[in-house]
Amino acid sequence: MKQWVYKFSAEQTDGNKDMKALLGGKGANLAEMCSMKLSVPPGFTVSTEACLDFYKTNKEISKEIKDQVLESLSWVEKLTGKKFGDVENPLLFSVRSGARASMPGMMDTVLNLGLNDKTVQGIAKKTGNPRFAWDSYRRFIQMFSNVVLGVNTSHLESNLEDLKEARGVHEDTALTAADLEELVKVYKSVLLEDHGIVFPQDPMEQLWRSIGAVFGSWNNNRAMKYREMNNIPHDWGTAVNVQSMVFGNMGDTCATGVCFTRDPSTGEKKFFGEFLVNAQGEDVVAGIRTPQPINNDSKMESNKHHKTLEEVMPKAYADLVEDYKMLERHYKDMQDIEFTIENGKLWILQTRNAKRTVNAALKVAVDLVAEGMITEKEAILRISPEDLNQLLHPRLDPKAKKTLIATGLPASPGAASGQMVFTSAHAEEWHKAGKKVVLVRAETSPEDIGGMVASTGILTARGGMTSHAAVVARGMGKPCVAGCTALVINEKEKTLTVKGKVYKEGDYITFDGANGEVYEGVVPTIEASITADFATFMKWADGVRRLKVRTNADTPEDTKTAIQFGAQGIGLCRTEHMFFAPERILAVREMIFAENEKDRKKALDKLLPFQRSDFAGIFKELNGLPANIRLLDPPLHEFLPHSDKDQEELASALGINVKAVKERNDALHEFNPMLGHRGCRLAVTYPEIYLMQVRAIIEAAIDADKAGIKVLPEIMIPLITEVREYSMIKDECKAEIERVFKEKNHTVKYKMGTMLELPRACIMAGEIAKEVEFFSFGTNDLTQTTFGLSRDDAGKFLPSYTQKGIYPRDPFVSIDQDGVGFLMKHAVSEGKKTNAAVYAGICGEHGGEPQSVEFCHKIGLEYVSCSPFRVPIARLAAAQAALRN
Amino acid sequence: MKQWVYKFSAEQTDGNKDMKALLGGKGANLAEMCSMKLSVPPGFTVSTEACLDFYKTNKEISKEIKDQVLESLSWVEKLTGKKFGDVENPLLFSVRSGARASMPGMMDTVLNLGLNDKTVQGIAKKTGNPRFAWDSYRRFIQMFSNVVLGVNTSHLESNLEDLKEARGVHEDTALTAADLEELVKVYKSVLLEDHGIVFPQDPMEQLWRSIGAVFGSWNNNRAMKYREMNNIPHDWGTAVNVQSMVFGNMGDTCATGVCFTRDPSTGEKKFFGEFLVNAQGEDVVAGIRTPQPINNDSKMESNKHHKTLEEVMPKAYADLVEDYKMLERHYKDMQDIEFTIENGKLWILQTRNAKRTVNAALKVAVDLVAEGMITEKEAILRISPEDLNQLLHPRLDPKAKKTLIATGLPASPGAASGQMVFTSAHAEEWHKAGKKVVLVRAETSPEDIGGMVASTGILTARGGMTSHAAVVARGMGKPCVAGCTALVINEKEKTLTVKGKVYKEGDYITFDGANGEVYEGVVPTIEASITADFATFMKWADGVRRLKVRTNADTPEDTKTAIQFGAQGIGLCRTEHMFFAPERILAVREMIFAENEKDRKKALDKLLPFQRSDFAGIFKELNGLPANIRLLDPPLHEFLPHSDKDQEELASALGINVKAVKERNDALHEFNPMLGHRGCRLAVTYPEIYLMQVRAIIEAAIDADKAGIKVLPEIMIPLITEVREYSMIKDECKAEIERVFKEKNHTVKYKMGTMLELPRACIMAGEIAKEVEFFSFGTNDLTQTTFGLSRDDAGKFLPSYTQKGIYPRDPFVSIDQDGVGFLMKHAVSEGKKTNAAVYAGICGEHGGEPQSVEFCHKIGLEYVSCSPFRVPIARLAAAQAALRN
Repeated sequence: MKQWVYKFSAEQTDGNKDMKALLGGKGANLAEMCSMKLSVPPGFTVSTEACLDFYKTNKEISKEIKDQVLESLSWVEKLTGKKFGDVENPLLFSVRSGARASMPGMMDTVLNLGLNDKTVQGIAKKTGNPRFAWDSYRRFIQMFSNVVLGVNTSHLESNLEDLKEARGVHEDTALTAADLEELVKVYKSVLLEDHGIVFPQDPMEQLWRSIGAVFGSWNNNRAMKYREMNNIPHDWGTAVNVQSMVFGNMGDTCATGVCFTRDPSTGEKKFFGEFLVNAQGEDVVAGIRTPQPINNDSKMESNKHHKTLEEVMPKAYADLVEDYKMLERHYKDMQDIEFTIENGKLWILQTRNAKRTVNAALKVAVDLVAEGMITEKEAILRISPEDLNQLLHPRLDPKAKKTLIATGLPASPGAASGQMVFTSAHAEEWHKAGKKVVLVRAETSPEDIGGMVASTGILTARGGMTSHAAVVARGMGKPCVAGCTALVINEKEKTLTVKGKVYKEGDYITFDGANGEVYEGVVPTIEASITADFATFMKWADGVRRLKVRTNADTPEDTKTAIQFGAQGIGLCRTEHMFFAPERILAVREMIFAENEKDRKKALDKLLPFQRSDFAGIFKELNGLPANIRLLDPPLHEFLPHSDKDQEELASALGINVKAVKERNDALHEFNPMLGHRGCRLAVTYPEIYLMQVRAIIEAAIDADKAGIKVLPEIMIPLITEVREYSMIKDECKAEIERVFKEKNHTVKYKMGTMLELPRACIMAGEIAKEVEFFSFGTNDLTQTTFGLSRDDAGKFLPSYTQKGIYPRDPFVSIDQDGVGFLMKHAVSEGKKTNAAVYAGICGEHGGEPQSVEFCHKIGLEYVSCSPFRVPIARLAAAQAALRN
Repeated sequence: MKQWVYKFSAEQTDGNKDMKALLGGKGANLAEMCSMKLSVPPGFTVSTEACLDFYKTNKEISKEIKDQVLESLSWVEKLTGKKFGDVENPLLFSVRSGARASMPGMMDTVLNLGLNDKTVQGIAKKTGNPRFAWDSYRRFIQMFSNVVLGVNTSHLESNLEDLKEARGVHEDTALTAADLEELVKVYKSVLLEDHGIVFPQDPMEQLWRSIGAVFGSWNNNRAMKYREMNNIPHDWGTAVNVQSMVFGNMGDTCATGVCFTRDPSTGEKKFFGEFLVNAQGEDVVAGIRTPQPINNDSKMESNKHHKTLEEVMPKAYADLVEDYKMLERHYKDMQDIEFTIENGKLWILQTRNAKRTVNAALKVAVDLVAEGMITEKEAILRISPEDLNQLLHPRLDPKAKKTLIATGLPASPGAASGQMVFTSAHAEEWHKAGKKVVLVRAETSPEDIGGMVASTGILTARGGMTSHAAVVARGMGKPCVAGCTALVINEKEKTLTVKGKVYKEGDYITFDGANGEVYEGVVPTIEASITADFATFMKWADGVRRLKVRTNADTPEDTKTAIQFGAQGIGLCRTEHMFFAPERILAVREMIFAENEKDRKKALDKLLPFQRSDFAGIFKELNGLPANIRLLDPPLHEFLPHSDKDQEELASALGINVKAVKERNDALHEFNPMLGHRGCRLAVTYPEIYLMQVRAIIEAAIDADKAGIKVLPEIMIPLITEVREYSMIKDECKAEIERVFKEKNHTVKYKMGTMLELPRACIMAGEIAKEVEFFSFGTNDLTQTTFGLSRDDAGKFLPSYTQKGIYPRDPFVSIDQDGVGFLMKHAVSEGKKTNAAVYAGICGEHGGEPQSVEFCHKIGLEYVSCSPFRVPIARLAAAQAALRN
């Protein structure tokens, strides 16, 4: 027979801390603490498998599980000498959820289960404390009504408030036993009259329904949402912990509290906590009374005049100190501990690794190593790479009041706050006037570059994570929220309307590019701060990782930032972004309007010095680190002007009529530009474009080399589908490079390779590898084509896909290992078969996402590349990948 | 040492007819005929490998090859008793190209090689026929100048014409020896004065340069074009045949001619040919004199009064009859034979399988089986499936004069001729007035359906092979040329401009949807005719094929046509095409404009009866054959009106303002609709659409079943990427079907499955197969996503890809077996592993393309599906695939 129920007590314990998958975090740790002989009230855990069984059997608890629960229940009765439902000496239980991953506050808890109109009398009599008995009963009715009966309990709570008002008291503790008995009657009549529910008196019915309700709470809306946000699989299920009650609400020798073994906001090594006398369960968190500090170290402005636990219950405090030290030593990590003191005796109800800010986490990790508690390698695994994001960007003050007005895509991290402007012209004007502006547009285009530079952040209503706004903002390190579809932007009237409310130009707005949230007005931000602990920690991480970490950077500035963050070269330099600058775009457009190769070359000749100087700047910053430079990738129409005004300007600049400009725009229109005339396809039809680009690269490299700066250019040809396509372009580029070598009478080393960003390129990688020196996986486009899914258009349905669990994660955020990953694995293994020396990396957005970095490690890539601000995240993820695999 | 040169003569022969890859067709057959002891002038073949070597070594003939040529040359000298370059008794050669596949007229030939100012005298003396000698010499200079020296020889030819005029003669044969000697002088001086070339006198130099020129001609423009059109790989190379000359121009006992063992236009069993007395080489083809019939059977209107070969040279004719019979028996196929008669003696210079019309090919194949010459299986392999196209559609009269004005994509086969109209409204109006119209548009949209129905053909300037125009036209069986980018259409002015010439509405135009060619004015067409031989032949083909052949059909009419052509069911019924009809499109738009599920359902309820009756009609035609019905696939915006007028009409029909219509249009706009909100993604967000569709299918099926008509609906969910996506939609559809069964108290059998049209679906096929009953490969979209290549946008660069040999064939025409094929093979093998019963087919455009059909056979699909008119092609291709594999 399968074991569905696991007992825990000082006498017998079936589980341990490593059984989180089966017992949930809380259950596993309760078992562990029992083994450690801490004072833990005995009880039992109904496993997560029982939860899955519950869903399989149409939300019924099976007979086999019920039998095991009953057997465990009588075992607890024996241990405690009390009886569940007994009128004289009733055993009461808490029923709590506990999932494999911590989901704080997401699921439900019922305390004091087993109370009814009779047992409440028994408790009153036995404890000689009727106030306590009735307080517990009214709490039980409240919680059970909410959690199990599904009643909106604000009614009940307002009855409590009414009663307090009627009695002229401020705190629950001031209510008498009679008051509370009265309140129980009111509660029961509200349930009956308003909801037609007779409050169940049978303790067994209470128990079964509570277990069912906790299982059911696994799929309540807030739990589902939480799992989606935190990438927790929906099919893990929750365990249920049924534990005998101890009481913090039996009088002034009783208390309940929460403590941390170190300071959770700073990580400092000081014992920190809060407690409430004569209180139960959620009271500390609920903020009904101001909690007291457990010791002087825990005093804050709000409670510094309150007595400490150390003062009021020194014995229990001393026991708590002994216990917290034992727990931290045992778990080798900072703990978050819940305790209850019943008539002076300390009981530990829960311990878990404490949530903490990333700065605190770094400090704790570094300190624990210094204290000899953990190794450096263990420390490395303690920090979630994604959390480093908090360190690197300014962020919204978490304590500030905020009015959320909309949520878009978190396109480029960081918080931005400023006055709204609706045109790039105004952005530049206002910026010059010393104003802090946020550029708000339906979508941006290359013409907005100036406005984007002038703004503290960019907010768009349309476009996805790879839209112009998003890509350029990430490159600039500017915060950006894109595709915020709730915004209705009228660029003519210069208004922004959200949910009926109209904002005008100059109104303040704030957004957080890390989560996509947009707020009204100014929300104060906190600057990023990098600590010595961070530096120490990252050094350890760099010591263990095998993957190199490069950056996606298009400018010397980005390159510099990335190198400061530890980048080991450029993994993707997008040459086309260099085309957008105002002084260059005209030459680009001239090239597009050229009617023949000669005119095209003339326009390209104008671009050559710009490109050369771009590369010179980048080579200087890199100072010998490799630079993977991708030749022109986007379709030419991306460079054309779209507004009438801009078209007229272009026409006059080119000396042609505006009709010709419009016609060329129309002629270049594509139904599916993503799958159109772009990448190396441009080189197949207009070879001279790439020739100008390789010339610029090699001329800059030669200049740098002559000036004593080491250079390592890697020239990357994008959008390859077939080895013959690559070879032809490679041969043309190499011939041009040889011409430059001859002209300059100087050579430099360089590499040539390709981007694998289409399914066919991955399939044919064995053939392609024979001709290249490196591969770089462009997983943005590879994901788009493998799924047949345009990232810019997916906003209308992709959320449904992750919500419904069709895709466990957004494949544009974390590599789809089954599908896209299959192609990548195939490409690496086939490629290395025919060319063992082929050097492989990734330059899609996934290169900075921890799970994707681990996948890249596992399939044997040489490096990952990501935007500058994600470099530390990738470094840590790479280290963790090396340690885990 | 490698053998580069292969000898042939009655005495010794190195090759045979099966060595075409190495010796080319001509060389292999010359060797074969020598083995058969036919009278073939001795010579040798320089192999195709030598040609490839020539390109590898920078267009030099290597020493090793030269040595072998010299050795073979002296062998021929010994056999013939003549000496190359000898003044007394000179040996002359013809040098001819000969590739593995016949490329008639595409490459070059030099005759009479070895003549110079001295040997011409020797020949004159030895033959006692100075006129012949000088005629041969002037011919040699002409050919050598053209082929080897690269001189435009129209000058030389006009000198010949001038001379004829000066002498007052009409035919070359009337010129005297002195005239021709004079002409040689003129030729040489033109070469020297106009081109600075001294005509080479050294026979060895003549030989090496001629061989080099023939090798070089492999890559001349017309040869490259021909190979592209005929899918002949560029890396095969050509062989060179160096053969001792025999002469048809030595006088009236000499002749040269071409004959066919049967009639090449009808296939009738009658010996057919033409010849010229006292002529050489190309004279017969060049049309300088009217050729004479070889026998009475060969007499035509133009030459019925001429003497036959049978009459003028009865002995040689008798020998020819003996030889042709031997050759046909030997090759077991109709032959095309070139011969020369030198002083009464017959020499055979070439034999090959004769080109013929498809009707002739069918007749010959069926006759040869009847004659016991070949088996039915051999007969099946004799017809190129693609050629059947000629049989099924009206086509342009090949004898008609035509003025080609542009070439577009061959989007839907058949020839169309009529008056141009530029709007659908006019198409319908003029059609009602009894006029034959061709609808000419930039591109079509669903609103054009009426106009398309009213037209004899559709011609568009934009859009690709899967554009609206193309897909709908193929469905209707209407001829269509799409993406004809040379056309500049002004719909407002109602003009069509091509290369500066302006055509107006009402002007006549003709096009051929089978090759994309567009002609000015009316070109007469010939109706299709299906013969008894065709029926016999197809019965044989059906007897051997394993693959079933279904059709892509959306209407009862198409279904009927396809079944007449032998379709075994529907492989793809696109339900959305049913939405475009005028009386339905409003309900579709109502659905799109619905703000909630309730309004959407209301609109869908209006569509239900239409869909149900569509399916009823199709089920009736199928009468028990399976019908694979794909649920809604295109993005919703495809159904919205685009012109202001249509938007206004819609607004008033829906009782909303036109601004709302425009806004909805904008909101539904997608950057890459191909990768957007379509297919099953619509069902994930709006489940009610598919539920309406399955209800319509099942209600129609039940009605049919009750009426005694057998039904086999297969419900196909498009654009799946993931098994969970499929399962969710499948479960919803099945629940709706169960509801219909209950309501009607009647059940029918049906299947549910999916389309594999995205790389990820193929990769995950093992998982997906567990949940489906069938797979159908949607190779159009699969090709687009595997290559990252939008078919509608590829027109600007894909031609360069095939021209430059990057892609051996257009992957939208023939399945890319390496890339797309890899995914298909993977999907079939993984799918059958987890579900051996999964039934797999293909429904992309490739399903009717012979090479693709063979690939489908090889990877183990159960059926192919194609448009109605391609069903016979697919049947034959499937039969050939079965025989070959």
